[in-house]
Amino acid sequence: MRQIKHPSIEQVELTDLMYALSDPTRLEIVGRLAAAGRKMTCGEFDLNRPKSSLSHHFKILRAAGVVETIIEGTEHMNALRLAEIEQKFPGVLQSVLSALRQSP
Amino acid sequence: MRQIKHPSIEQVELTDLMYALSDPTRLEIVGRLAAAGRKMTCGEFDLNRPKSSLSHHFKILRAAGVVETIIEGTEHMNALRLAEIEQKFPGVLQSVLSALRQSP
Repeated sequence: MRQIKHPSIEQVELTDLMYALSDPTRLEIVGRLAAAGRKMTCGEFDLNRPKSSLSHHFKILRAAGVVETIIEGTEHMNALRLAEIEQKFPGVLQSVLSALRQSP
Repeated sequence: MRQIKHPSIEQVELTDLMYALSDPTRLEIVGRLAAAGRKMTCGEFDLNRPKSSLSHHFKILRAAGVVETIIEGTEHMNALRLAEIEQKFPGVLQSVLSALRQSP
């Protein structure tokens, strides 16, 4: 089965992570995945943005090691790589998620 | 005396902070200011990059509320706004600084 390539967590740089989190749409995707605590299809995000724009954002999130996209049948399922990111950069993603929950 | 404008901490968005920290030169500036624990002139960073490029990076750091540049006589003194950032986004900059210290 075709699968999408992801970087290993060792390949991920802090600057990649920061860049991935520097866009409001990507922060929203990350915040929703964290709140859901489960894999989500791209359609479930209901972000009211063009599909091409969402594909671009997911690509950046994958390249930064933040999101893993797994093809399950006809669906693209997205999961947050929270534990791995947390182990590599302790507290960074967790504190960003807290700041996100506090923001109006 | 001429002074440089800075955003109030209320104006700073989480995405601005993430973007400011998404570049290796800017991360290095922030890391050095944190390690020094004092104001530094632009020249002290000795980053071996063109002055115009450094001006650009300092501009982005100022716009994100990360760095404050104060004109003292003929010098531009740069300080980290660590306490303010920490109060607005608890743990974010501190965990990034820790990750930076751990990186090879």
